[in-house]
Amino acid sequence: MAASEFSHLRCQIDARLEQLLPRQADDPVTLAMRDCLLSGGKRVRPCLLILTARGLGNDSPPLLDLGCAVEMIHSASLILDDLPCMDDASLRRGRPTTHRQYGEDIAMLSMVALLSRAFGLVSEASGLAPEICTQMVTQLSRAVGDQGLVRGQYQDLHASQQLRSVNDVSTTNTLKTGVLFQATLALAGLAAGANELTASRLKCFALAFGQAYQLYDDLTDGLAVNGKDVDQDNGKTTLVALLGEEEVRQRLAGHLAKADRHLTAVFGADSSLGRFMHGLFSRFDHEHGGLLSQRASAFPLSRH
Amino acid sequence: MAASEFSHLRCQIDARLEQLLPRQADDPVTLAMRDCLLSGGKRVRPCLLILTARGLGNDSPPLLDLGCAVEMIHSASLILDDLPCMDDASLRRGRPTTHRQYGEDIAMLSMVALLSRAFGLVSEASGLAPEICTQMVTQLSRAVGDQGLVRGQYQDLHASQQLRSVNDVSTTNTLKTGVLFQATLALAGLAAGANELTASRLKCFALAFGQAYQLYDDLTDGLAVNGKDVDQDNGKTTLVALLGEEEVRQRLAGHLAKADRHLTAVFGADSSLGRFMHGLFSRFDHEHGGLLSQRASAFPLSRH
Repeated sequence: MAASEFSHLRCQIDARLEQLLPRQADDPVTLAMRDCLLSGGKRVRPCLLILTARGLGNDSPPLLDLGCAVEMIHSASLILDDLPCMDDASLRRGRPTTHRQYGEDIAMLSMVALLSRAFGLVSEASGLAPEICTQMVTQLSRAVGDQGLVRGQYQDLHASQQLRSVNDVSTTNTLKTGVLFQATLALAGLAAGANELTASRLKCFALAFGQAYQLYDDLTDGLAVNGKDVDQDNGKTTLVALLGEEEVRQRLAGHLAKADRHLTAVFGADSSLGRFMHGLFSRFDHEHGGLLSQRASAFPLSRH
Repeated sequence: MAASEFSHLRCQIDARLEQLLPRQADDPVTLAMRDCLLSGGKRVRPCLLILTARGLGNDSPPLLDLGCAVEMIHSASLILDDLPCMDDASLRRGRPTTHRQYGEDIAMLSMVALLSRAFGLVSEASGLAPEICTQMVTQLSRAVGDQGLVRGQYQDLHASQQLRSVNDVSTTNTLKTGVLFQATLALAGLAAGANELTASRLKCFALAFGQAYQLYDDLTDGLAVNGKDVDQDNGKTTLVALLGEEEVRQRLAGHLAKADRHLTAVFGADSSLGRFMHGLFSRFDHEHGGLLSQRASAFPLSRH
């Protein structure tokens, strides 16, 4: 039941993204934007945003656009991450990366256009009070900027040749993945008029979820099944390299349990957001032949 | 008198930019952002914004931050424009371009951070009504996005090998230069609560000013004195190549006269914005040994 609940939501998100960026055959930049946005993607961030706001009692149409804005920023960050001067990746979601398909210049322009469109979408979100929209723009600006994704990307690239501590790697993970989840949940809280305590719990949830998500990514690096270049992180210090797979699996389970506790404090023991999170990691696990649940005792995937 | 009036304003803008982006010696991304933002630059856009809003009766502190936001977007567009996969420029304002000095990855990250910071600055501008801030974010998003600077940059790169008409080149010029001037003036109008007629005149002024500005750029390409690579536009179709220098000089004068008419309609015959514009083009002319005024009859530089 839960699966179909979320697949309907994903379809709504896909349809809205498609609508926001209509096909213009003569414009390679919008084609590249569409390709990156519409070719797959689990829509994790828009789903989190919408399910959280709904859980808090808001189910208004602008949620869909806010989710699409966050997805556009995420897509832009993938294009950036894959560029020759960054990770120089050739595959993403099983397809050629944007610069491989369209050229580096168009990849870069589509990245800039996606970012800029995201801010515009938030500022134009209808039905929200303008003072809420401006706070959302502020949140996204911080998430992207030199203390957010940009800093994470820099650390990820430039610290990779050095010996790094577990804390350093965790900080980079938070900046590369956590801050956008944090902004996503902050937008949901703002849209639903969450009080300070709830907003702070959602922030803790986002950070725990982000750490779990990044560890999953580290665990599956080197596996062809994830549709990216195999061993993309080769040369970078990941927590898997520092701690070993088993320890990372346990930590991932710990982050999920922490995320669960914060969710329960906000929504009670059973929430659609909780079902979404567990469904997501169960699917990851299934896709990777039980990689995450090899020590079932440490991994609470059976809960839902 | 006029010169010192504007040099004080430029100092205020420089000081605020410096304050907004404090030096962090251990962070190459913010160093690159600062370098691009603070190393020269005529501050044309912030000056236009502030002088326009003042002329319309608003002289509040957030104007400075709005001006800095527009300047950040302009700086980001210069970094982008210079990248190896774009113009592959080595010099800008007489110094190595950002990617030459810091590497391509840091140039790109600083470009993204500047863009994103600009949106944040506008959303946080204190003393403005939130509904004004959201409209400003919308304006800037459109100016940057796939129908604005991004499209201009694409056309500039990809149409360069073809034979292009005067109209095509003018459209590219508008997208590359005019749309950000247009957004700059729109922000000024919004900050000052301009009515529709005034806003529309300011838009016409911005477009005429932008065309004049771009023609100046075309005329001075190939001259080492402008601090950029000599013949950066080599291989691109410019209006100078299509029409010849003399015709371009006349057109430039025509655009300035048009800009003047719109200014006069809003502010009367003598305005600080008018003095600024004429002072700017006179300075250009002086710096280039009278390049613009070789046919004084066609060029109204003597007015102020």
